[in-house]
Amino acid sequence: MTSTVEPLSGTVEQAEVASRADAFVAELSEWLRIPSISADPGHHADVTRSAEWLAATLRRDGWPTVEVWSDTAALPAVYAHWPAADPTAPTVLVYGHHDVQPADLADGWSFAPFEPQVVGEELRGRGASDDKGHIAMVLLGVRAHLAATGATAPAVSLKLLVEGEEESGSAHLAELLTAHGDALACDEIVVTDTGMVDRETPTVCCGMRGLVDLEVVYRGAAVDLHSGQFGGAVPNPVTELARLVAAFHDDAGHIAVPGFYDDVREPTAEERAAWAALPFDEPAWLAGSAAGAMATAGEAGWSTYERLWARPTAEVNGLHGGYAGPGHKTIVPHSATLKMTFRLVDAQDPARIKPLLERFVADRIPAGIDADVSTGGPGVPPLICDLDSPLVASIREAMGIALGAEVLPAREGGSGPEALLTTALDAPLAFLGVMLPADRIHAPDERAVLPLLLRGAESVAHLWRLLAERVTS
Amino acid sequence: MTSTVEPLSGTVEQAEVASRADAFVAELSEWLRIPSISADPGHHADVTRSAEWLAATLRRDGWPTVEVWSDTAALPAVYAHWPAADPTAPTVLVYGHHDVQPADLADGWSFAPFEPQVVGEELRGRGASDDKGHIAMVLLGVRAHLAATGATAPAVSLKLLVEGEEESGSAHLAELLTAHGDALACDEIVVTDTGMVDRETPTVCCGMRGLVDLEVVYRGAAVDLHSGQFGGAVPNPVTELARLVAAFHDDAGHIAVPGFYDDVREPTAEERAAWAALPFDEPAWLAGSAAGAMATAGEAGWSTYERLWARPTAEVNGLHGGYAGPGHKTIVPHSATLKMTFRLVDAQDPARIKPLLERFVADRIPAGIDADVSTGGPGVPPLICDLDSPLVASIREAMGIALGAEVLPAREGGSGPEALLTTALDAPLAFLGVMLPADRIHAPDERAVLPLLLRGAESVAHLWRLLAERVTS
Ligand SMILES: [Zn+2]
Ligand SMILES: [Zn+2]
Repeated sequence: MTSTVEPLSGTVEQAEVASRADAFVAELSEWLRIPSISADPGHHADVTRSAEWLAATLRRDGWPTVEVWSDTAALPAVYAHWPAADPTAPTVLVYGHHDVQPADLADGWSFAPFEPQVVGEELRGRGASDDKGHIAMVLLGVRAHLAATGATAPAVSLKLLVEGEEESGSAHLAELLTAHGDALACDEIVVTDTGMVDRETPTVCCGMRGLVDLEVVYRGAAVDLHSGQFGGAVPNPVTELARLVAAFHDDAGHIAVPGFYDDVREPTAEERAAWAALPFDEPAWLAGSAAGAMATAGEAGWSTYERLWARPTAEVNGLHGGYAGPGHKTIVPHSATLKMTFRLVDAQDPARIKPLLERFVADRIPAGIDADVSTGGPGVPPLICDLDSPLVASIREAMGIALGAEVLPAREGGSGPEALLTTALDAPLAFLGVMLPADRIHAPDERAVLPLLLRGAESVAHLWRLLAERVTS
Repeated sequence: MTSTVEPLSGTVEQAEVASRADAFVAELSEWLRIPSISADPGHHADVTRSAEWLAATLRRDGWPTVEVWSDTAALPAVYAHWPAADPTAPTVLVYGHHDVQPADLADGWSFAPFEPQVVGEELRGRGASDDKGHIAMVLLGVRAHLAATGATAPAVSLKLLVEGEEESGSAHLAELLTAHGDALACDEIVVTDTGMVDRETPTVCCGMRGLVDLEVVYRGAAVDLHSGQFGGAVPNPVTELARLVAAFHDDAGHIAVPGFYDDVREPTAEERAAWAALPFDEPAWLAGSAAGAMATAGEAGWSTYERLWARPTAEVNGLHGGYAGPGHKTIVPHSATLKMTFRLVDAQDPARIKPLLERFVADRIPAGIDADVSTGGPGVPPLICDLDSPLVASIREAMGIALGAEVLPAREGGSGPEALLTTALDAPLAFLGVMLPADRIHAPDERAVLPLLLRGAESVAHLWRLLAERVTS
């Protein structure tokens, strides 16, 4: 499996990865056949099977400690530990997940999502990239690292936490971290669930946005009213909720909630310059969704990368009220429901944002409307990596060797459990991943680019060596 | 069945109605047991049964011509003709409908909707008021008129058109009027499908609003996008459609569509004064929906009656886009659908309003959004009665005798086939009906106030005499 794009590094690690490539594809394909959909209780047995598959594989690889954790309310998570020979070597925890997004032929897949297939350079199937492909990449990287060094233990102490609920919002991860805090103690955290801006431009994710939910239900009358008898003389909950949606942004796309931007640090001129230097192929980016968005849009004064990485959002996920059938029904609907998520950046704290949102809604409830306002769970804090940290530097160096190019800093716009991990384990965190926007994660026809997964495995193999050298040097 | 509210007129017609009251309730109850729901194909056989029941009843009453019309695409309509003895007497067509709104226990009925029951002064059941109760009222009025005059034919030539699709929008009424134009030829039209503002204040409906539909579908990407990967940088069809909804009104509740008010004649100072003199019990009016709307609202500068009767509306009937399940889903929805109805007044012409709406939407389609815009069928023109016409004067006099009080002009906010009837048959049209806002037509627990139906029947009996006298005097 020779890449047509990435040059080969010619390192021992690269050769060790290459010699294991065919076995890697066979192994990962086996794992992808297990539909470990955490969002669907009907597939929870598959999540358990997936955890057991991973545990068995780790044991075969020689990891001294391998456990499947089922002692909390969380779906089974896999933990493994492989101490370095040198007891003073740092401990690095790798975090990822073995559950996958729902996938059904009827959603628009062009093949059965749990019958993986290799087509050219691609491995296609649900989870091929997010995140089974990346966990398998780490396992391969560890094998190559051991083979390249000829040692029986890795150069740094390795820990692995592969949870089974990430695609359902990591609902019990906090519980898991509390219950197993001792086992998970580490010096550094590497999250392997992110990607690069495109194949030609190696980048490393250095930040994720946070998230707060908002749900607003407006209720007028107890049942739908006849729009002839009442229309024009009573408040319409759907119209009023639409007006609330419209009020969340000004004409320039800025969010109009007072105080919302107080903890947003604008990216530095350096960061903006670095991102501006990244290639951005707008048509390719739009098409990358497998969905064909037709135009970019958003807050005035910011590029697409900046809008995605450094600017918060107020996004409507759903708005429903009144008649939805064929034709028309002349009613004043009795209620309407709005679901939104707000992506947060920098120092925006979900706990400080929630009351701002609640006040914004409360200030606008029209007469004759009862409103239920909820901001759901604790939310997700944003996470920004320290670009000057040795961990980020080592990851950029490791990926740079494997990919044969300078690795530029980027961010991602999504939200994950990173802030929770770094806070609970009190350790710095960075990302290593080779997903591409065109991998269609969370969408039909997910795939991974195999040569990139192999370069990712090689990066992992280099990383353990670089992290150990950094400490001993 | 003595009313506790309305005084008895002491006329012969009143006595003839009273002597037939028990039989009237039994007869109407039998009809109400037929669930003639035109909107539900599963009940179309019942619509046919309902037409046959009515035809049989008319034949028993002695109407010389009784026909069930099934020769068009329309559900069966009943036609009857009873010529006056005097060939110079005017011909009056009474229009109503025998189909009913859907009704299901699960919608919140406190009793089986098609098992009618008498409770105190009320007859409860789907159709008790709208419109079977009012058609039965006309039949009773004709019987009382004949008994009171001792004649074998009515004083005016009577025609009856009772259609079976009014609650589904009278979709084939135009076809029916074309196919049977000769049979339906008449000098005046009386529609018996309206009511009074409240029981203590006899009023006659002198106008209905028109109606135009609008459906707008916004489409962004082909499937939902991940709000982390794309949120903030692509247009959100739901947000954009909510902004369109918000744009339809200014802060004072005026409709912002250019040219929309061009053909709206404000009611005269006299009309406004007459309506202002009508009692308006806001809590009772709000509660009258059986639904408990909680406040009035609407266009600044107008009373509730004016908002309902003399002002056009832009009403959202439904708005749907994105996730509607439990919890949250972090997506940028791929599409959203808006359904609206615009109520029209005075000289507003659906054919002139539609392009204004289409242009308003077209001017606002955001970049990156595909829009489907549809204004549906031909719409319904508004209808305003001539308050100075002999027909309206006779109806007010007839109702005034039966109800023992001056009958004030009012309007209704709904839309019916009246404009179609008056145009197709080229005859003036007026309304005679005794529905109350609290009759819960189109809602669970529909009922009719029996003493009012009897006063309505007496009004009908007086009306034929008054219309004949007016011509001969
Ligand atoms: Zn993932
Ligand atoms: Zn009706």
